[in-house]
Amino acid sequence: MTEQITVQLAETRREKPDQSNLGFGRIFTDHMFMMDYTEGTGWHDARIVPYQPLTLEPSAMVFHYGQTVFEGMKAYLTKEGRVFLFRPEKNMVRLNRSNERLCIPQIDGDFVIEGLKKLIAVDQEWIPTAEGTSLYIRPFIIATEPFLGVAPAKNYKFMIIMSPVGLYYKEGIAPVKILVENDYVRAVQGGTGEAKTGGNYAASLKAQELASGKEYSQVLWLDGVEKKYIEEVGSMNVFFKIDGEVVTPALNGSILHGVTRDSVIQLLKHWNVPVSERRLSMEEIAQAYRDGKLEEAFGTGTAAVISPIGEFLWGEEKMVLNNGKTGELSKKIYDSITGIQKGALEDPFGWITEVPISESK
Amino acid sequence: MTEQITVQLAETRREKPDQSNLGFGRIFTDHMFMMDYTEGTGWHDARIVPYQPLTLEPSAMVFHYGQTVFEGMKAYLTKEGRVFLFRPEKNMVRLNRSNERLCIPQIDGDFVIEGLKKLIAVDQEWIPTAEGTSLYIRPFIIATEPFLGVAPAKNYKFMIIMSPVGLYYKEGIAPVKILVENDYVRAVQGGTGEAKTGGNYAASLKAQELASGKEYSQVLWLDGVEKKYIEEVGSMNVFFKIDGEVVTPALNGSILHGVTRDSVIQLLKHWNVPVSERRLSMEEIAQAYRDGKLEEAFGTGTAAVISPIGEFLWGEEKMVLNNGKTGELSKKIYDSITGIQKGALEDPFGWITEVPISESK
Repeated sequence: MTEQITVQLAETRREKPDQSNLGFGRIFTDHMFMMDYTEGTGWHDARIVPYQPLTLEPSAMVFHYGQTVFEGMKAYLTKEGRVFLFRPEKNMVRLNRSNERLCIPQIDGDFVIEGLKKLIAVDQEWIPTAEGTSLYIRPFIIATEPFLGVAPAKNYKFMIIMSPVGLYYKEGIAPVKILVENDYVRAVQGGTGEAKTGGNYAASLKAQELASGKEYSQVLWLDGVEKKYIEEVGSMNVFFKIDGEVVTPALNGSILHGVTRDSVIQLLKHWNVPVSERRLSMEEIAQAYRDGKLEEAFGTGTAAVISPIGEFLWGEEKMVLNNGKTGELSKKIYDSITGIQKGALEDPFGWITEVPISESK
Repeated sequence: MTEQITVQLAETRREKPDQSNLGFGRIFTDHMFMMDYTEGTGWHDARIVPYQPLTLEPSAMVFHYGQTVFEGMKAYLTKEGRVFLFRPEKNMVRLNRSNERLCIPQIDGDFVIEGLKKLIAVDQEWIPTAEGTSLYIRPFIIATEPFLGVAPAKNYKFMIIMSPVGLYYKEGIAPVKILVENDYVRAVQGGTGEAKTGGNYAASLKAQELASGKEYSQVLWLDGVEKKYIEEVGSMNVFFKIDGEVVTPALNGSILHGVTRDSVIQLLKHWNVPVSERRLSMEEIAQAYRDGKLEEAFGTGTAAVISPIGEFLWGEEKMVLNNGKTGELSKKIYDSITGIQKGALEDPFGWITEVPISESK
């Protein structure tokens, strides 16, 4: 796409929120990026406009048949006042993989990243500066065709909205308690587990609600076929350190290709820490725990980056890791990735994309 | 709920469509029913208003996490000018079952049926009269809270929109060709297959698209665990007549509780035709075919009522049923159910709810 991105600035800018209490995903910046898809024409009318409500027909397919995909990214302000994105090209590749599974037309990732950079430049004053804060970026696509037939839509909207956020967990990097889920299933081979689509998250709510009622903050998902093998934790990928080796479930078709997951693996290899991706049963984890070899566990995702796990409950068996404290390696990975993201540490991997912010405000 | 339903009539009524070319789900009536849910207050502000676009925040959870449920129903005009609904109470029970799975608050089914009756009365002139036509009714609920966290929403909209429809398949009651799906999965035990929620339909699009490319109009879904057992066909339940007995997959947690499915079973029992609900493997169906005992097959659903199956393709094995013609029993069931729905036949089952249409226009 060589199309121009038009910019319509908001007449007034809203007051910026108190950075000590940002929460997650409730406050949005002054502008948003959007473009439309029409069958036969392709994506068109890329534009930055004031943040505003969407108007859609009640029969718009997104309300009925869940044809949606999304991404999660972050922009960071460095101490020097530079603005960094973390591996945005990976998010675009994944977005297109999700599009493929959901029968949504492909987007031009480079073009979208250009649009995102422009959007960030326009709303740069919204990037929070306090420790642990960042600008959360939510690209998403919805099917807008007004039609009740079950078929891929002929019209879509692609949008990017942005939200200044604090830490995902109020506790910050503090261990969470995880319930191993035995009844509900998030995804299965041949389903949509690998795609970042609404239905996966809708399917997860019930188990999450039941876990919360038992004072567990997330669930660990087992495979949908045998309910033996570990898939994800909450909406994150999951890693275990067993007897000095770090292991994470291999991407099997029902596990999300996490950008943080990939970064952790690269980082560990760079450090010469043994790391493997393979099928991993809950019984193996429990046995490692019983043998005193389960040293650490943590979830990975864009929102929380690293979320250490302090406890698992699997049926009747409770496993407390590392006395419920954050493991040494978990902390080191967290510090390294967030350090690179914020420009405090060098980036030997080429993970950072800088956003030019000189232009407009 | 004893709340009043307010009515705001449209200032002008739109022109009614050509009944010979209604299609499905593209044209909507002049009004719609809606009510809102607010945590702490419950459902409120039930109202009938002119059909109009919805305005939602871009961060409304429905766009991101697929927290939606819906129903499909029909209203029929009898020759005598009476308006009939078919088992609406069953749809309300199912809607609440879907709500439960998706962490959406329960609705008062009786109250909603009252609202629906009022809506139909207001838009009664939209019920088409031509052979095979009806007024399709789409109740649905969407999560509207503007929040990017993964959790059940605190705000929802319940709506009913209505569309005059022709036959779901342009061919009418004519056999369709079905591809048995071996790669993609619609649902699995512990997932959301039993709920009428967007994600299930989104998950089905890819397989459907591939089947269409091979000139098959729907796919037959096998279970997500062993890929052996029959679940549904397209977005319908499925029945087989084998050596004089009618069989359909038992409701196992990943199969939708079809209202037409239940009606077919009742009808067959009433006729003393042997019918059973049980686990049914694709191999059993293929063997029955090879033995010359697979007499008929058909899908059931509100949109198509009965959809005869003329052919299955399972891997390399092609099975042509009944010379690709509509089976005798399939036709008899179709005629009986549509006859009851349209008031042409007696209703010994108490399936019909009459809509009083004397009041307003």
